[in-house]
Amino acid sequence: MSAIPGVALGVAQAGIKTAGKDDLLLVSLSPDTRTAARFTRNAFRAAPVDIAAAHVLATQGEPRYLLVNTGNANAGTGEPGWSAAMACCDAVATHMGVPVQTVLPFSTGVIGEPLPSDLIVTALAEAAGDLSEDNWDRAAGAILTTDTRSKLRSVEVELGGQQCRITGIAKGAGMICPDLATMLAFVATDVALEQKLLESLLASAADASFNRITVDGDTSTNDAVTLSATGRSGVVVEADSPECREFSEALTTLMIALAQDVVRDGEGASKFVEIHVTGGETQQAADKVARTIAHSPLVKTALFASDPNWGRILAAIGRAGLSEFDTRAVTIHINGVLIAEKGARAASYTEVQGQEAMDPTDLVVEVALSRGDEQAVIWTTDLSYDYVKINAEYRT
Amino acid sequence: MSAIPGVALGVAQAGIKTAGKDDLLLVSLSPDTRTAARFTRNAFRAAPVDIAAAHVLATQGEPRYLLVNTGNANAGTGEPGWSAAMACCDAVATHMGVPVQTVLPFSTGVIGEPLPSDLIVTALAEAAGDLSEDNWDRAAGAILTTDTRSKLRSVEVELGGQQCRITGIAKGAGMICPDLATMLAFVATDVALEQKLLESLLASAADASFNRITVDGDTSTNDAVTLSATGRSGVVVEADSPECREFSEALTTLMIALAQDVVRDGEGASKFVEIHVTGGETQQAADKVARTIAHSPLVKTALFASDPNWGRILAAIGRAGLSEFDTRAVTIHINGVLIAEKGARAASYTEVQGQEAMDPTDLVVEVALSRGDEQAVIWTTDLSYDYVKINAEYRT
Repeated sequence: MSAIPGVALGVAQAGIKTAGKDDLLLVSLSPDTRTAARFTRNAFRAAPVDIAAAHVLATQGEPRYLLVNTGNANAGTGEPGWSAAMACCDAVATHMGVPVQTVLPFSTGVIGEPLPSDLIVTALAEAAGDLSEDNWDRAAGAILTTDTRSKLRSVEVELGGQQCRITGIAKGAGMICPDLATMLAFVATDVALEQKLLESLLASAADASFNRITVDGDTSTNDAVTLSATGRSGVVVEADSPECREFSEALTTLMIALAQDVVRDGEGASKFVEIHVTGGETQQAADKVARTIAHSPLVKTALFASDPNWGRILAAIGRAGLSEFDTRAVTIHINGVLIAEKGARAASYTEVQGQEAMDPTDLVVEVALSRGDEQAVIWTTDLSYDYVKINAEYRT
Repeated sequence: MSAIPGVALGVAQAGIKTAGKDDLLLVSLSPDTRTAARFTRNAFRAAPVDIAAAHVLATQGEPRYLLVNTGNANAGTGEPGWSAAMACCDAVATHMGVPVQTVLPFSTGVIGEPLPSDLIVTALAEAAGDLSEDNWDRAAGAILTTDTRSKLRSVEVELGGQQCRITGIAKGAGMICPDLATMLAFVATDVALEQKLLESLLASAADASFNRITVDGDTSTNDAVTLSATGRSGVVVEADSPECREFSEALTTLMIALAQDVVRDGEGASKFVEIHVTGGETQQAADKVARTIAHSPLVKTALFASDPNWGRILAAIGRAGLSEFDTRAVTIHINGVLIAEKGARAASYTEVQGQEAMDPTDLVVEVALSRGDEQAVIWTTDLSYDYVKINAEYRT
């Protein structure tokens, strides 16, 4: 794990989540660090999301602290939720001697419960005392809720002869549970990037990574991804330069890895499934087909059963809303085995082949539409007993 | 159960489904009976759906026989599936001495297996010999697959001083499973209706009933609903007459009852849930919100747990795509209890109230958007262990 010069992390036990577990993370960004952020498009945005978005704007991309609590999402909390989040920002500002707008708050956990801001304010000194550039591992652990493991990724990239670093952490057992598993990711690099470029690189990497994963389509109220560039490597990445393309590629690779970590740790997930749709007349059409398959409870339960149930995949494609759709032009491969073509089971297909194709934990479902040259990829999970168990038993 | 003069039903054991169980239904319609039909909009329509739709057109709404098999959907079967369905129609035409276009085929069951048309052709004589106007009960049983009970409804309506009848049967454990629970419904009446009127009455009743139910959004490849009017009561229903409005109301009531029967028997369902969204700026917007809630796995698992998890409902509303959405204007009631308002838990709400509201099997979730006067209702189920069990263990 590469530390990022200029980024220090401190964790504490505020007592919001289970007693004796880290549940508070303070991230300090050195002066001149630029930060871009992307937030959930859910209209019911949590109070901290509203505030963080406003503070990124107010500082023109130069916040100094990220404050993250787990155990409580501070969403669906109305006006008091906003005040509680601001109280936490105020405490950081006072403790650290910075303007309140330079603090970005993030929360994850139960929706609709009042945020115990007093616990956070009290634990702040502990987190601040813990600040260190070598704390990425503990930071990755401190933001988890029902996740079963940390998501922590690091890449090095040589730009203009100099080694630069990108490191990121994420949490979330999918975007699948606004109650307990909202998705957060924090990425930092030691290169220097101008604000607009930083924002556009984050946007395109997010579109290629976190916006490509789904467990059940339940976009959370708290999703947030930030990218902070400290510039401490001395390397300045200019727009449209070869270095920019290399950096963008490295960033996207890292964010895809983090996003896939989230899917692999999805609630109840026993499969990691790539849905790859080719031959769409538009990227949107290919994406719509991929998402319809990925969200189909029938497809997902079949994946759980390792059942090569191509009929359910065909049915999902058929209801994806493509106009003048010739179903006979579609072919489906699973892990390289031709399963269906011409609107029916492939002549060459055998149940034994199908069973072998479905056995691995990692599955690639390839759907060729033969309508054009556009494609889309979605990463998703199956739907298991444990998914129902986790989401039915929580809060009861 | 009111028999419909002019409609005779015969069942047989063709051996497609479990041995020793009825799995074939032949319905005979008297000459001059007019029939309207509505079919799935899934692009992967089964072969019998394509043929039935073509035959309704070819006979200008005067088919003479409906032939229904369970145990095999004849979907995803390509060209051979079309030939197999036509072979069954040919056999009926020959046996009954009618043109082949007057036979409408319907299939339900597993997708992608070849239809054993020889079994159907052989069993046809048994079904024809069994034809009787008093066979509605046995007919309702013969079309079931994984359904746990028959869906059979009858209403009488006085039109112009004369008692008229509408009787219908349906099958489907939801529209939830193209593999085994595709939805079929056959409705008949003894009034006379001109073809265009018949079609428009069926369309509006279907929109208010079967098109309002969902278990998981997995529109099947075989869905079909027919309405046959024999005219044997001697009552002619004219467009825009008071009788037409009464008939339409009675038809809609009957079809809603059948549709709700399907939801109540939904795979793994432990709850029957009405999602009622009011205050939409358009009917489409209210409908979108209702369906987003009804399809959310998080909402559905909470319903299974009898957990008044309004946060998940808010999150679903928030991702339904309404523009310039003020989340503070939303209120949510469950079985009459005010749960959430102003974007947060209602001040008056207690967990005890919430638990009491969620205890019954029948739940009404009312969402008021306060954006206009349009509304929408969707009937749905919860998502239970048994749903996963049924859909993961089938075919394995």
